[in-house]
Amino acid sequence: MKKKVESIEVKNKSISQLLAEMAKTAFQGRKLGETVEVWEEMLKEKDLTIIMGLAGSLSTAGQWKIVNWLIKNRFIDVLVSTGANISEDIIEAMGSSYWQGSPAVDDVALLKTDINRYYDVYGLESDYRKMEEFLTDFIFTLDPDYPYSSMEFLYKLGKWLNEKGIKSIVAVAAEHKVPVFCPAIADSAYGEAFLLAKSRGHNLIVDGMKDFYQFMSIGEKTGDVGVIYIGGGVPKDFTQLLAVSLSLKLKDQRIPRRKGFARDATGEYYYPHRYAIQITTDSPQWGGLSGCTLEEAISWGKIANEGKRVTCYCDATIALPLITHALNERVNFKREAPDFSWLLDKSS
Amino acid sequence: MKKKVESIEVKNKSISQLLAEMAKTAFQGRKLGETVEVWEEMLKEKDLTIIMGLAGSLSTAGQWKIVNWLIKNRFIDVLVSTGANISEDIIEAMGSSYWQGSPAVDDVALLKTDINRYYDVYGLESDYRKMEEFLTDFIFTLDPDYPYSSMEFLYKLGKWLNEKGIKSIVAVAAEHKVPVFCPAIADSAYGEAFLLAKSRGHNLIVDGMKDFYQFMSIGEKTGDVGVIYIGGGVPKDFTQLLAVSLSLKLKDQRIPRRKGFARDATGEYYYPHRYAIQITTDSPQWGGLSGCTLEEAISWGKIANEGKRVTCYCDATIALPLITHALNERVNFKREAPDFSWLLDKSS
Amino acid sequence: MKKKVESIEVKNKSISQLLAEMAKTAFQGRKLGETVEVWEEMLKEKDLTIIMGLAGSLSTAGQWKIVNWLIKNRFIDVLVSTGANISEDIIEAMGSSYWQGSPAVDDVALLKTDINRYYDVYGLESDYRKMEEFLTDFIFTLDPDYPYSSMEFLYKLGKWLNEKGIKSIVAVAAEHKVPVFCPAIADSAYGEAFLLAKSRGHNLIVDGMKDFYQFMSIGEKTGDVGVIYIGGGVPKDFTQLLAVSLSLKLKDQRIPRRKGFARDATGEYYYPHRYAIQITTDSPQWGGLSGCTLEEAISWGKIANEGKRVTCYCDATIALPLITHALNERVNFKREAPDFSWLLDKSS
Amino acid sequence: MKKKVESIEVKNKSISQLLAEMAKTAFQGRKLGETVEVWEEMLKEKDLTIIMGLAGSLSTAGQWKIVNWLIKNRFIDVLVSTGANISEDIIEAMGSSYWQGSPAVDDVALLKTDINRYYDVYGLESDYRKMEEFLTDFIFTLDPDYPYSSMEFLYKLGKWLNEKGIKSIVAVAAEHKVPVFCPAIADSAYGEAFLLAKSRGHNLIVDGMKDFYQFMSIGEKTGDVGVIYIGGGVPKDFTQLLAVSLSLKLKDQRIPRRKGFARDATGEYYYPHRYAIQITTDSPQWGGLSGCTLEEAISWGKIANEGKRVTCYCDATIALPLITHALNERVNFKREAPDFSWLLDKSS
Repeated sequence: MKKKVESIEVKNKSISQLLAEMAKTAFQGRKLGETVEVWEEMLKEKDLTIIMGLAGSLSTAGQWKIVNWLIKNRFIDVLVSTGANISEDIIEAMGSSYWQGSPAVDDVALLKTDINRYYDVYGLESDYRKMEEFLTDFIFTLDPDYPYSSMEFLYKLGKWLNEKGIKSIVAVAAEHKVPVFCPAIADSAYGEAFLLAKSRGHNLIVDGMKDFYQFMSIGEKTGDVGVIYIGGGVPKDFTQLLAVSLSLKLKDQRIPRRKGFARDATGEYYYPHRYAIQITTDSPQWGGLSGCTLEEAISWGKIANEGKRVTCYCDATIALPLITHALNERVNFKREAPDFSWLLDKSS
Repeated sequence: MKKKVESIEVKNKSISQLLAEMAKTAFQGRKLGETVEVWEEMLKEKDLTIIMGLAGSLSTAGQWKIVNWLIKNRFIDVLVSTGANISEDIIEAMGSSYWQGSPAVDDVALLKTDINRYYDVYGLESDYRKMEEFLTDFIFTLDPDYPYSSMEFLYKLGKWLNEKGIKSIVAVAAEHKVPVFCPAIADSAYGEAFLLAKSRGHNLIVDGMKDFYQFMSIGEKTGDVGVIYIGGGVPKDFTQLLAVSLSLKLKDQRIPRRKGFARDATGEYYYPHRYAIQITTDSPQWGGLSGCTLEEAISWGKIANEGKRVTCYCDATIALPLITHALNERVNFKREAPDFSWLLDKSS
Repeated sequence: MKKKVESIEVKNKSISQLLAEMAKTAFQGRKLGETVEVWEEMLKEKDLTIIMGLAGSLSTAGQWKIVNWLIKNRFIDVLVSTGANISEDIIEAMGSSYWQGSPAVDDVALLKTDINRYYDVYGLESDYRKMEEFLTDFIFTLDPDYPYSSMEFLYKLGKWLNEKGIKSIVAVAAEHKVPVFCPAIADSAYGEAFLLAKSRGHNLIVDGMKDFYQFMSIGEKTGDVGVIYIGGGVPKDFTQLLAVSLSLKLKDQRIPRRKGFARDATGEYYYPHRYAIQITTDSPQWGGLSGCTLEEAISWGKIANEGKRVTCYCDATIALPLITHALNERVNFKREAPDFSWLLDKSS
Repeated sequence: MKKKVESIEVKNKSISQLLAEMAKTAFQGRKLGETVEVWEEMLKEKDLTIIMGLAGSLSTAGQWKIVNWLIKNRFIDVLVSTGANISEDIIEAMGSSYWQGSPAVDDVALLKTDINRYYDVYGLESDYRKMEEFLTDFIFTLDPDYPYSSMEFLYKLGKWLNEKGIKSIVAVAAEHKVPVFCPAIADSAYGEAFLLAKSRGHNLIVDGMKDFYQFMSIGEKTGDVGVIYIGGGVPKDFTQLLAVSLSLKLKDQRIPRRKGFARDATGEYYYPHRYAIQITTDSPQWGGLSGCTLEEAISWGKIANEGKRVTCYCDATIALPLITHALNERVNFKREAPDFSWLLDKSS
């Protein structure tokens, strides 16, 4: 049962082999290796819905095509994202670029040359504005004053982008019927595009409560859930609520196929997530959600103690490419992914 | 001009005196001292609106009465918060408690005894549910299917709580006419209360775009802006957009009293925040918003290079009590705070 | 037994009062408050030796007079330090200064103007060289080729500095008979002064093993031990070895006044430290000594589970001034500090 | 000149290819990729001495055979290490093992079953003691009361281990004539083995100043220097002093082949390192050496602005395996490594 630490011998090997060896070491190298194992196990599980919470601004950092690959291969089934990740990718998908820069720079000089800085990435303000104008055009295709959920809004946007051949994350997600939720959607280029549309006479409503309701409906109709958190923030918190909110909604029902369990104290049912992978650069001791252990979520009934879980403290720009390339090498079977047409078609 | 580092002599002194001495040292001790100086300067400024972005779950950590104090004294004028901070305080305001716990604990045992863990704080699930039921009662007092902004929703809630003598953050904010925005409000007990209300036949719409529009309207009617970020996340990002979104809305107007400036490249006007204080435990090198320098925001036109700004990398549970007690000792004048009746009354 | 979290009310209070209230909150604010309580308890304990491990380069950051205050008041009995902390203070004690600078600076320009940067502190290279020349003068007063321990070397230096009225840390320590150990002493201005002395014909031997032996002899002659770690590194690791090394030396002895205990498995005696305070900015998940929990040290027999311990994750430039000012207010009794003349006189 | 950020496409590729693509992204993923490029460039450079500073306790974490591989291939020429890294590897090299454990464990229970914990690694105390006894045997083969440098001590140990077929880091280093320095050697199992030897009548002197002198002599005889820091601490600080100490020693000499440069202000020569790679989990804002930028070292004359340098903020258990495997794939030439027989033979 006990596993030895095995010191790594440097020689020719594949990415997945190296990560498998790292899983036999220690500290975060071990954890990085273990994430691949847990994800692979999720993919083999029958009747499992895999939800990814994607925080931060990773599309500017060369990561958005990895998310597309995960969607196309259905290594994730639902995406919960910041607005940044699913708007700033559109700039590249439209043919513009981001540029490698430096964090040790005169930001006043950048401002004067229309460059927005994301740590060591430079983006042109004019490209950003072009993307916002483009999103404004899309908003004009929508019903004014109809309360959309962010998921409905983004599904429509995805289809509209697909028609134009712009293969951003929401476009690929729409094509592959992967619902995308963005709980704080106004807090991004989407909010600014809405302002432009409104100033030109077209009002848009995005109803956060409807979003929440539709997200919870996923929980009602699926079996077990596995979660993958790239960073924390709202995408993680929102996704975790799937587990506890169900107990509110389903308290009088029996859902025999789900492996929920009763609390001793109140007899209430919880539907904790059975698998969890967390990549984060935050730390537990600050007391916040983004760095907390997955064990903390057990106390809330958000994660099942019986399932598999692994946290790797590492920059996502390191972890995400490595994990996905290892999965690409290792997964040689076709996963049966759950179908979310029922949710998406309702809103199309 | 050059300032000496002055080694601290331990002797009897007040909190504000010690922080003033720390401002003459180095590293984050210096920065903690400087935050008091910058905040005090903000309070002396004429025609300045002070917006606080409050991330995380700090109300469970003994910090919410500090926020109330800031509101009562009008050391802040607008609050942008996570849902956690302005719902979990209600539990204490209703008379229940949180308990000091340990992060090194068996979370399965906590689950079985109905305890939710927030790092080293324990809260009872039954208290949480009670608060949710209470919020559900409030939701039933609202118009179904009317698209509220989170600000409108929270102002009404604040007044309702005041009637009941429950002095939580939103209650005190309503009393003192401080608008509270919660851009991802569904991602919290508010979302769960909404689910309960909906399951009982009452629908609630909270329109994120309306939120954004109303928040931007603050920018239109105020002079300069100072920001205080306790943590990052959505509250910081959303608040920063006040600066850039204005340039979209106001591009054809002249607002002479504002100290905006033109970008060289496009001739566009920006309305960057003149003062900025940031308390964070995140780090710049991870490339995210929560840890980035305030200088990065200069490149975006979100912060004015000409203004004062200071970042202190420190847990808010250390920094916030110290800074506010120092302000309490130091500020002996009455600030003329801006009046937001025009915004709040519109929605009452 | 269970303690409520108590939300802080902002009003006039002393530093120690505020820290006592912070001890009733959560996260690192709570921990900061608790450090004062644990340190105060140490000071009340009979027959306790308090050892401080002092890492980093804190003397340039305005902290060295605080260390002097701790020594003068015998709130610590033994100091284990980096070379930086006990050499860079001499520059200020000699009358020169450090300057407040910025980390966002052109370091090539600093190099060209003879400025050495310590994050946001500037020091003149010429001041550093003057200090090194001064230490070289001292080395010439020593016996060539005699194997000194760092403790012997620094005690002699302290007395020599006292004669000259230069009240640096080692001077004050010598005056108050507090032994100072510097396990990696060559890795600092001391190494460079040695090089200068050697190039001028005077050889100096500093024997690390003798250091270790003399440090262990403290453990043999004292009762219980309390440790205070400001940062980690060699000072922490070296101090911890006091606990385990004793078990090597004392295995056939009975030391009844010490509260050591036997391991079940081997029957060997350990002499773990009964009190421990740790201030660090490192994190446990990286697997290193500087960020690890004090609990990890229990597994090694380095810290007693029965004792009191507290870790506060915070920059020392914030924590150290606050804790010491709170102690200054709170401690109104005269501690009976252990006498280390037997150790120091042996080597004088 | 400007480089685009290129979003990664997931497909089959080698480790070095993936890292090359990561070098075209952002944040720490970019930096990880760049370390490989800088190291490869170092290997191609003529007359360059590559010094590795190796902090922490990485041998227990499955990394020591990677260090051996670097030595055998002469991808490093000199090693500066903590005592932990070059003693705890001997346990595995002698045939015992470390075990994968958990940081969420009852450390009292571990203590009672003789297990020492290193974050998530378990080691048997009995194995540790066996290794210490073994080192004690070695100490008895040395001259009592002769002042060894750590380098001399470790070279002799390496040869002694080679005779016994125990291929630990110092053994492989001795075989390949790579000098190993351990500036704080007493602070480890070596200190404890010394205590045992001394209690049995054999005294050992390890002279830290001699160590420093011999380390500096490397600088005198070599051309340019490249440094690789795995973590910070004493190994980094000590290695950096090679650059500044030279200016003390060489101030009246001309060393034309070296690319040193004069400070404007004093006319003094410095010999900064031309290449630098830093892997660290610490952060600049805490003001310490382990997390500071390589730019800070430029102000000190420790690193050359003209050279190449890269810092990657990442756990070494992730970065080190990846970088070395990429080098293994990419480097297809035989490097001409500098010969250190002159230094090692002097002391054999």
